[in-house]
Amino acid sequence: MKATYQGEIGAYGEMAIYKFFGTKITPVPCKSFRDVFESVKNSEVLHGVVPIENSIEGSVNQNYDHFIAYDLKVCGEIAVKLSHVLITNTQTKFEEIKIVYSHPQAIGQCRNYLEKHNWETISAYDTAGSVKIIKEKQFLDAAAIASEKAADFYNMKIVARDIADNSSNYTRFLVLSHEDTAPTGDDKTSVIFSAKHAPGSLYNALGEFATRNINLTRIESRPTKTTAWQYNFYLDFEGHRTEKRCAEALQALEKYATFVKILGSYPRVI
Amino acid sequence: MKATYQGEIGAYGEMAIYKFFGTKITPVPCKSFRDVFESVKNSEVLHGVVPIENSIEGSVNQNYDHFIAYDLKVCGEIAVKLSHVLITNTQTKFEEIKIVYSHPQAIGQCRNYLEKHNWETISAYDTAGSVKIIKEKQFLDAAAIASEKAADFYNMKIVARDIADNSSNYTRFLVLSHEDTAPTGDDKTSVIFSAKHAPGSLYNALGEFATRNINLTRIESRPTKTTAWQYNFYLDFEGHRTEKRCAEALQALEKYATFVKILGSYPRVI
Repeated sequence: MKATYQGEIGAYGEMAIYKFFGTKITPVPCKSFRDVFESVKNSEVLHGVVPIENSIEGSVNQNYDHFIAYDLKVCGEIAVKLSHVLITNTQTKFEEIKIVYSHPQAIGQCRNYLEKHNWETISAYDTAGSVKIIKEKQFLDAAAIASEKAADFYNMKIVARDIADNSSNYTRFLVLSHEDTAPTGDDKTSVIFSAKHAPGSLYNALGEFATRNINLTRIESRPTKTTAWQYNFYLDFEGHRTEKRCAEALQALEKYATFVKILGSYPRVI
Repeated sequence: MKATYQGEIGAYGEMAIYKFFGTKITPVPCKSFRDVFESVKNSEVLHGVVPIENSIEGSVNQNYDHFIAYDLKVCGEIAVKLSHVLITNTQTKFEEIKIVYSHPQAIGQCRNYLEKHNWETISAYDTAGSVKIIKEKQFLDAAAIASEKAADFYNMKIVARDIADNSSNYTRFLVLSHEDTAPTGDDKTSVIFSAKHAPGSLYNALGEFATRNINLTRIESRPTKTTAWQYNFYLDFEGHRTEKRCAEALQALEKYATFVKILGSYPRVI
C-alpha cells in the first residue's frame, strides 16, 4: 500500500504517514501539495497526507484552498511533533552562516531565532528538501532547518537544536481518501461552508452546533477568491456526520450558507 | 510628516501611504513588518502601515501576531488594488526565465500562472525588493513579480501583465498609531480576544454582536503559540467603540474571553 506526501525523504509528512499507517505502508514523495491531491484523485495511491495547521504558525492556506478545488474526503488526522534542528555541510562553521533555507512554515516557526542572528532566509519547497539543496550545491555559508532524520539521511551536521520559537511545535496533518471513516465513538467532522451575505448568518450557522452541544474544535476563514472580502468558513467539530445531532446540524447549516461541503468524519486524535 | 512601510520604493505599502495620507507625507521604507511596529512604538514616526489581508491569499499572519506583541492602535484602513507584472532585466528573453523572485504573498497570488510555467520560486522580503535583487545581481535567468511602478523605478522590462490568479486582487492595509480615530459616523472597530475554554464560548461571544445588530466584517483565528490548538480570535465589526451598542458588546465580550484587546476604531473604507 502506498501513500503520498509533499517533500523529500525525512520530511515531516513522511513521519505523519508512518505514524498513521504504521510500517506496512510505502511513503511516496511528491513535489507539491497539489500533486498529493492529484495522486489521490487519480487513484495512483489510496491515500495522501497534507499538513493543515501548525500550532505556532497557523493554517497552511494552500491546503485549505485545495479542499475547495478537489472532491476528496478526509479519513483521518495526525499530530506530528516537530523538532527542528539547524543543519549545515560538515565543513561549515557556525559563524560563517549567512543564509538559511527551509519551508516558509518552518522559517515562520523559528522567526525569533532567525531574527536574533539576522540571517537572510530563503524559502524552499520542503524542510528536508532544503537540506538536499545545500548539500547538492555545496553551500558553505548556508544552513537548513529540518528534522534530525533529514540531517541523518543526508549525512549532514547538526549545529543547533530546539530552535523553534516555542517547544510546543506540532503540525496537524489530514489524511486524504475517496471515502471518510465509519464511526468509532470518538470522531471529528470537517466541513466547509460559505455564509450567506446577511447579518448574523455566521452566528446563526454556529448556533446550529452550539444549541446541540456540538463542540467546535476549529474555525478558519479563507477568501473566496471570486469576490474580494467574501470568505469561506472551515469548521471542525466533535462527532461523526452520521450521528443524529451532527446530521441535523449539518442539515440546518444549509439555511445560512450558499454552499456546504462535508469533507468527512474521522477518528479524533487531538 | 513621516510614515513607515515594509519594502523598497515602489512597494504596495508605499502606495497605501500615499492613498491614505495624500502627498503631504514622506514614506519611509523598513526592512521588516516588525520594524514598522517598532518605529511607531518608539515614536520615530507618527504612523506606519502594514498589510493585514489580501483578497486572494488571505491573512498576513505575521502582522496579526504583531498586534498581540505591540500595544499600538489602528487608526485607519486602506484597500490597495494590486496589479502584478512580471519584470526582468532588459537583456533577458522570456524563454530564458527559470526562477521567479517575489514576496511569498505575491507568489501565492500568482500561483496558477507560475505553476503553468513550472518556474522555481524564491521568496524575497518585498515585491519591489525582488526587482532590486535581480537588477543588482544582474540575474539573466530570473524574473520578479512586483508593481509597474517598481519596474519603472528600477528601469526594468515588463514581460507579462495581469498575472494574478484573479484580477480582483486587493490588499487591505491597517494604519498604526498611538491613538485610534474619533467617530465619523461610518466606522469599523478591530478587537482581539481569546475565547474561554468552555463549550459555546465563541458562539456566545459572537452573540453579543449579533443580538445588537452589529455587523461582523471579518473573523480570523491565530494560534496562541503558548498552548497547541488554542486560538486567539480577531474580529472586525461595523461601528465605533464609543457607540453605545458597540461599547456594550465589547463589555459583554469579557464574560466569554480570557482577554480582550481593543485595537481601535477608524473610518470604514471597505
